[in-house]
Amino acid sequence: MHPGKSLNGAARGFIIPIGGKENRVQNPVILRRFVKLCGGSRAHIAVIPTASSLDDTGDLYETVFRDLGADRVSILPFKSRADCESDKYLKMLDHADGVFMTGGDQVRLAEMLIDTSAADKLRRRNAHGMHVAGTSAGASAMSAAMIAGGKSGATPRAGMVDLAPGLGFISRFVIDQHFSQRDRLGRLLAAVASIPFGAGIGLDEDTAAFIGPDDTLEVVGTGSVTIIDGSNLRNSAAKPVRHDDPVGLTGVRLHILVEGNTYDLATHTLSGGILSAKSNAAGKLTAAALT
Amino acid sequence: MHPGKSLNGAARGFIIPIGGKENRVQNPVILRRFVKLCGGSRAHIAVIPTASSLDDTGDLYETVFRDLGADRVSILPFKSRADCESDKYLKMLDHADGVFMTGGDQVRLAEMLIDTSAADKLRRRNAHGMHVAGTSAGASAMSAAMIAGGKSGATPRAGMVDLAPGLGFISRFVIDQHFSQRDRLGRLLAAVASIPFGAGIGLDEDTAAFIGPDDTLEVVGTGSVTIIDGSNLRNSAAKPVRHDDPVGLTGVRLHILVEGNTYDLATHTLSGGILSAKSNAAGKLTAAALT
Repeated sequence: MHPGKSLNGAARGFIIPIGGKENRVQNPVILRRFVKLCGGSRAHIAVIPTASSLDDTGDLYETVFRDLGADRVSILPFKSRADCESDKYLKMLDHADGVFMTGGDQVRLAEMLIDTSAADKLRRRNAHGMHVAGTSAGASAMSAAMIAGGKSGATPRAGMVDLAPGLGFISRFVIDQHFSQRDRLGRLLAAVASIPFGAGIGLDEDTAAFIGPDDTLEVVGTGSVTIIDGSNLRNSAAKPVRHDDPVGLTGVRLHILVEGNTYDLATHTLSGGILSAKSNAAGKLTAAALT
Repeated sequence: MHPGKSLNGAARGFIIPIGGKENRVQNPVILRRFVKLCGGSRAHIAVIPTASSLDDTGDLYETVFRDLGADRVSILPFKSRADCESDKYLKMLDHADGVFMTGGDQVRLAEMLIDTSAADKLRRRNAHGMHVAGTSAGASAMSAAMIAGGKSGATPRAGMVDLAPGLGFISRFVIDQHFSQRDRLGRLLAAVASIPFGAGIGLDEDTAAFIGPDDTLEVVGTGSVTIIDGSNLRNSAAKPVRHDDPVGLTGVRLHILVEGNTYDLATHTLSGGILSAKSNAAGKLTAAALT
């Protein structure tokens, strides 16, 4: 499923898309967990601020990761495709335990890195155990089919999503971010419908999917992660659609996951942490819990 | 499934929830179809404007239905529960081919009619062939478990939906309206999760579900109808939720239907009008159609 999976017997590193606006100061559960995963006080983290148009984005995350106890934080300020071939930067990647890609514009990030030695090394190092996290634009750019932009709304409409090539850490899943906050279900459904047997991961702000080498996804953070399982998705249109028409889709399976849930991306099943099986024989919430 | 189904061998009348803001003048496809279903130039339609706080809502629809060729339009101005026991009004229902419930406030409509002779007669006449349409509040009030109000957003959250008893033309489906326009997926998911084996029908504006006596639903109008099949829905919460927390749900099946689609509410399958089976061997949209 993941292009960089299990080469030479080494476990792949985690892939950690984050929905943007993760808590960085008061209660940084996601970033703290990332630092811990990278080795805590021994962690060497490399920050790629390329998506951002602001000059101090790299410095900001350097401070955050140092405050969280990382031993070493390097910034990889790729500002041109030539930078992405620089031996100096490529060597930094050889020694990083984890890479963090900041928010900004995923098209800028992808266009700078795709088909460069840096992108190649990122994927190879991830396959051998280096963890890769990205927030907002940095999360979007992880998919092979990347959402470059689109319109908001819960209903998929013709022409509402723009896809472009991404960095391809994840091949069959499309990632979207700021998901509930910017009302992006429609565009993620439209993106998933365009990819055979595809699936979608919609991440709320301050919410991350920690995807392990065994392809289980664990939710960390205050929001929810929406999984669109498109295995049985079909177009239900009874006539050709025009631009902006709603697009009929049938057979979508939808899961809304919250902190503590783990989900198997290979089998599309929830693999633990279900409360209702114990608390409610019908497997349904009681009305009181929801209304 | 429907309380008023097939008594004495007569086919039940259609049940027609409409998502609000249906086109009434330039291209009134929904209302024209309703008038035709009721007999066209021989149709006798009764309008129930009770949900509306405006005095001229009944007159407005009287004009619309007359312009569409209905032979007779009566207004049933139920303004008190005593009105709902009035022989004069109850007799009007004996002769109507179809009833139309206007928009406004579904709580006002339901509280006025529930457990009155009028509500009883409406259900019994529907069971014997009288068609019942309702728009916006008039659509919401059709379910037995009625959405009385709630918050917007695509993600279900604890406490985001208020349920109240409705008129019960449809027992196992919760209906919501202005669906895409007011971003109501979350509250419909929350409502469905609270009803064992329940399902939800989310209607966009200017879009109707024509539900026939055989429980097939046909979409008419310019928007989409979202079906939430909750047969396999489970709460995925790993810990108890607090008010406004996102609520984890797994196993939701989602269908987004557009004009021309027909859907079997008993078996939860799309029963016709699928374009992709012919146009696309993979059963997927081509990227070009959606992006």
